[in-house]
Amino acid sequence: MILVMNQEATEKEIEKVKKQITDMGYHSHIIKSAGKILIDATGGKNHEGSTNLLLLPGVEKVVPLKTPYKLVSREVKKEKSIVDLGNGITIGGEEVIVMAGPCAVENEEMLFNIAEKVAEAGAKILRGGAFKPRTSPYSFQGLEEEGLKLLAEARKRTGLKVVTEVITPQDVELVSFYADILQVGARNMHNYPLLRKLGKQKQPVLLKRGFSATIEEWLMSAEYILAGGNFNVILCERGIRTFEHYTRNTLDISAVPLVNSLSHLPVMVDPSHSSGDSKLVPALSRAAIASGADGLLIEVHPEPQKAYCDGDQSLTIKDFCLLMKSLQSIAAACGRTLQEQANSSLPDCFVHVCS
Amino acid sequence: MILVMNQEATEKEIEKVKKQITDMGYHSHIIKSAGKILIDATGGKNHEGSTNLLLLPGVEKVVPLKTPYKLVSREVKKEKSIVDLGNGITIGGEEVIVMAGPCAVENEEMLFNIAEKVAEAGAKILRGGAFKPRTSPYSFQGLEEEGLKLLAEARKRTGLKVVTEVITPQDVELVSFYADILQVGARNMHNYPLLRKLGKQKQPVLLKRGFSATIEEWLMSAEYILAGGNFNVILCERGIRTFEHYTRNTLDISAVPLVNSLSHLPVMVDPSHSSGDSKLVPALSRAAIASGADGLLIEVHPEPQKAYCDGDQSLTIKDFCLLMKSLQSIAAACGRTLQEQANSSLPDCFVHVCS
Amino acid sequence: MILVMNQEATEKEIEKVKKQITDMGYHSHIIKSAGKILIDATGGKNHEGSTNLLLLPGVEKVVPLKTPYKLVSREVKKEKSIVDLGNGITIGGEEVIVMAGPCAVENEEMLFNIAEKVAEAGAKILRGGAFKPRTSPYSFQGLEEEGLKLLAEARKRTGLKVVTEVITPQDVELVSFYADILQVGARNMHNYPLLRKLGKQKQPVLLKRGFSATIEEWLMSAEYILAGGNFNVILCERGIRTFEHYTRNTLDISAVPLVNSLSHLPVMVDPSHSSGDSKLVPALSRAAIASGADGLLIEVHPEPQKAYCDGDQSLTIKDFCLLMKSLQSIAAACGRTLQEQANSSLPDCFVHVCS
Amino acid sequence: MILVMNQEATEKEIEKVKKQITDMGYHSHIIKSAGKILIDATGGKNHEGSTNLLLLPGVEKVVPLKTPYKLVSREVKKEKSIVDLGNGITIGGEEVIVMAGPCAVENEEMLFNIAEKVAEAGAKILRGGAFKPRTSPYSFQGLEEEGLKLLAEARKRTGLKVVTEVITPQDVELVSFYADILQVGARNMHNYPLLRKLGKQKQPVLLKRGFSATIEEWLMSAEYILAGGNFNVILCERGIRTFEHYTRNTLDISAVPLVNSLSHLPVMVDPSHSSGDSKLVPALSRAAIASGADGLLIEVHPEPQKAYCDGDQSLTIKDFCLLMKSLQSIAAACGRTLQEQANSSLPDCFVHVCS
Repeated sequence: MILVMNQEATEKEIEKVKKQITDMGYHSHIIKSAGKILIDATGGKNHEGSTNLLLLPGVEKVVPLKTPYKLVSREVKKEKSIVDLGNGITIGGEEVIVMAGPCAVENEEMLFNIAEKVAEAGAKILRGGAFKPRTSPYSFQGLEEEGLKLLAEARKRTGLKVVTEVITPQDVELVSFYADILQVGARNMHNYPLLRKLGKQKQPVLLKRGFSATIEEWLMSAEYILAGGNFNVILCERGIRTFEHYTRNTLDISAVPLVNSLSHLPVMVDPSHSSGDSKLVPALSRAAIASGADGLLIEVHPEPQKAYCDGDQSLTIKDFCLLMKSLQSIAAACGRTLQEQANSSLPDCFVHVCS
Repeated sequence: MILVMNQEATEKEIEKVKKQITDMGYHSHIIKSAGKILIDATGGKNHEGSTNLLLLPGVEKVVPLKTPYKLVSREVKKEKSIVDLGNGITIGGEEVIVMAGPCAVENEEMLFNIAEKVAEAGAKILRGGAFKPRTSPYSFQGLEEEGLKLLAEARKRTGLKVVTEVITPQDVELVSFYADILQVGARNMHNYPLLRKLGKQKQPVLLKRGFSATIEEWLMSAEYILAGGNFNVILCERGIRTFEHYTRNTLDISAVPLVNSLSHLPVMVDPSHSSGDSKLVPALSRAAIASGADGLLIEVHPEPQKAYCDGDQSLTIKDFCLLMKSLQSIAAACGRTLQEQANSSLPDCFVHVCS
Repeated sequence: MILVMNQEATEKEIEKVKKQITDMGYHSHIIKSAGKILIDATGGKNHEGSTNLLLLPGVEKVVPLKTPYKLVSREVKKEKSIVDLGNGITIGGEEVIVMAGPCAVENEEMLFNIAEKVAEAGAKILRGGAFKPRTSPYSFQGLEEEGLKLLAEARKRTGLKVVTEVITPQDVELVSFYADILQVGARNMHNYPLLRKLGKQKQPVLLKRGFSATIEEWLMSAEYILAGGNFNVILCERGIRTFEHYTRNTLDISAVPLVNSLSHLPVMVDPSHSSGDSKLVPALSRAAIASGADGLLIEVHPEPQKAYCDGDQSLTIKDFCLLMKSLQSIAAACGRTLQEQANSSLPDCFVHVCS
Repeated sequence: MILVMNQEATEKEIEKVKKQITDMGYHSHIIKSAGKILIDATGGKNHEGSTNLLLLPGVEKVVPLKTPYKLVSREVKKEKSIVDLGNGITIGGEEVIVMAGPCAVENEEMLFNIAEKVAEAGAKILRGGAFKPRTSPYSFQGLEEEGLKLLAEARKRTGLKVVTEVITPQDVELVSFYADILQVGARNMHNYPLLRKLGKQKQPVLLKRGFSATIEEWLMSAEYILAGGNFNVILCERGIRTFEHYTRNTLDISAVPLVNSLSHLPVMVDPSHSSGDSKLVPALSRAAIASGADGLLIEVHPEPQKAYCDGDQSLTIKDFCLLMKSLQSIAAACGRTLQEQANSSLPDCFVHVCS
């Protein structure tokens, strides 16, 4: 059971409510988060008096809640959350938002080239890894701060917002200096010190589902960030590990409508990591939007066969452009919007190819 | 390597080709299926001479093939297969086909009621189990032949085609007497005696993916049916078993574009069994069509809470009607069609609710 | 709730008990099996009166049971079941029983050779497939009745009992004519018509766990056989399908103690199919016995690299002999027995290698 | 291909070898670790000249290696590694080592009580969490440094070594000040910054397998630590996530013999987390030793039903004592040792119960 207190509830009123709950046999726990005060009551056996709690001064609503996640729950907050990135870019609203870019920031020329092209095709956010968590200690681990600077420069040139991964609590400050959205990768979804640190700062967080995390665990990881005070969390389904090996992971498309019913947080889909196969990305992108996703995270590379990592799953710029066109009609059929730049400088012949 | 022979190739020409292949170090194996003769050559080490095989009389094409499935492969047959059920109903063409109905045939009144309503809403095929494979020996096992008769009667009344499950080789003849499509359930995907029997008759087969079968194994099970001579096979993805337990199974949406690239066979999606949750069925149905599925298999029940089985995943008739409306725009956005009956007798108020 | 009736309970007493149960709001269902009468009462909400049921004439015990399986449950039958194969060979008792032999019966010479050697090394039962369920329609499908005859002949020569697979209900009679134990393979664990047929005959059944079946589903499949009247069921864990691909399947060793606590049926382990790797078979065999398994099912082939199927997982005869020696001490440490033939004709040098 | 250089190889010799490798079309990469110099050569197509490399001055051996892990590979180092903790306690040798203790350090009295009892029963290492990674932000997160102090005090009183978890790179120094072995939990197996930090210090590391990590990924995580210079790594299998839900995880017992063949590192098993069920712990412990594990990590609590976490999987002290007795005979049957304290102060009656 969660009690949501009025914004104006006094300390005294809160104390009185806590006492009442305790008398009913519950343990109570105050959650202060983003200007709200919630009282989490657990363990009580006698639920009879719970309707009367609503009569106490300062109590706005009483939510009977059996899930372990509270602040992320749709039962505690009915209306969908919208993460506002400024410049009219929001995630969770009518517009479907596409984040696109290379797996890793490799160099200036490549990054700026991709950034311009994906912006013209309708992407609103540039993705690119500067800190790369790699399975092998001998693999390329990212350009680190140098990569972050290039991302920030690409933002200045294109107006795209920037999302990039942070892999350890110490780096949160550094990455948030350069990026608009801090990404928690699948391997770090259970990295609670990192989540706690992200809860204590204001930058929006893109929280990827661990590749073998249940939806409940994923929502609990989001709860860590909200419990710290940061409500700007965007969830991202990126495939789970199963016995099937024709794809790198199995995109759990059901997670999209499920999260939409369980939580108020926006939810995106990463079709590139889900499949590990660029041939499947267009169909999975269409499916994601049709299932109700608020956006997509797509890997694009000018020459996928030469990419430092994840080349197999990266779209060429041309294929990305073609995909964006096809997504517009799907978005429209779902009552949502998705637009390319009005002043697109794509040469005619290129537009022709994309049409 | 598969050699496809001309329709007019003589026995002598075939023998000559076989000899040549054998001389090159291959084992050869003749596959006669649906009027075609294919020679499957395996094990050879020296691939140098293989282009010359095309010059031999009677050889139409030479397909270098590394997959264990042959007749179902898109490499052996480029054009998509269309299963023709008569009366203008085809699966695999432009039209998205919806199969709908109850989990089990329970009684006449209930079945006829559902059949009429789903037909008006645009379904083309009636589903309903007469033989039910149940986990418990103490559960309802289906009305058996009595159920088949009711399905046939519902077909007569509505013009819907009928799909129903067959669970043992002995029943194939009986079920094919009543049904238009014979369904192989997930639990029987590895039932090779059943598959062989289905390959030896002409009725179309709906082959569900086993809940822990790889895509390769699924295509191999289809290969059993085609190898027997029956090319009218429709694949159906219905969710795989994973660690995630908020859903009954995990819909493997990637299987749709994968099967479309690997095979020429039509592929459908069953969102009801995939999720086990009627709340998720609409979003998953939309995703399935957006991913390129040729149709849907959906459970509908007038009173899901009273269903003999699978009530949790059955849509009410009203929710099914609403879903069908929303699917029309998705289908259109994908360049496909999906229509309700022109002469729908749904009362105005009902149509209003559905709009 | 299960009510076990006395052997001498009269029809009238049974009727009276049923009436009482119905009056308490339960549905009742009579299970007659192997001379016992059980009344399965489900659905009642008021459990208060259930202790009084014990006072009714004819009631032997009342078992509060929440599992869907009943006859296989350890709660209904406390003492471990022992399957008696005759000639002093029993499964489920103090002796650890090893079943060994080739994946498929290939020919007379090979089979008789293996049979003699595994018997001398201490195996009590010969395994070998005559009907092979194969993923590909183009693979070797077994010698069928010819293979069964060879197995029966090998039994005559060695005194070994014979276990072999049956894959369709029609073949049950034929296979049971030749074999001592009928094996249901992993792919057929959900083949309910086959299970029902096996319940209606007396030959013992070795029921392998489906490679993605839960333990509950596995016990439910056993329940089908017991519900038909055949209590001679031996369970066999053979690995489940997971994301790990260094092994063909993941041996679920926990299933052994779990089944031992949930059910009275004997349980064996198949380390060959579990791992798909003969190098792992010895360690897994030792682990299986240490975990409480009643026996092992091991693939042995004189020349694994030439085997028609599953060569990678087959032990050579020498490695099998070495393994059997090492298992003796593990069995002893667990308070169980495992012995080679007293009159072993293995040449000295060979014994030496094995020691 | 890995080239292991002689200890005495000069810079000049190394340069010459690198040049030769480059001329053969390989990329080379120097790995300096624990006083050894290895040259990792990848990408070359022509393997003809590789045997000649052995003739170059300074080259000790040439290992053709196709795995991504190198330093952890058994091919690079044939003899099993032994981690020496001092006071005659080693992991990876003849003696089976048991680590036992509570899930979390809760308070002084409870910890000292457990420590004394498990030491008398034969445990050599005390486990207990001071930093707890919890799924919920509202759960008990550990006593942190206070807990570490209690562990160190318990070590002083009992002579047990101490293993405890570290969850973030910043805490490595603090934890290594108090503990003998630093544990990386399943959720942090992919935490590469943590692994790198652990590679740069000398304290032994117990690396648990991620609950959905492949064995290859697990060995790669160990490679991070070895590549940093710390060769004192102990692997610990603790169950993987599968569809089976009667157990919390599925103990992958095959991982033990597999790791023993692929790597020279010691490998332990955690039967408590694997199963989540104390009833299964004894059978799984026996299976682990029989499969070749070098030790066990077992949760013990004086009153499991009151434990702050993981009560369901904790053994009582009495059950732990009984288990240790039974493990002695299994260890002996496998040619290994496991002993209780010679001067055990367990009261007679208690020993009697345990016998």
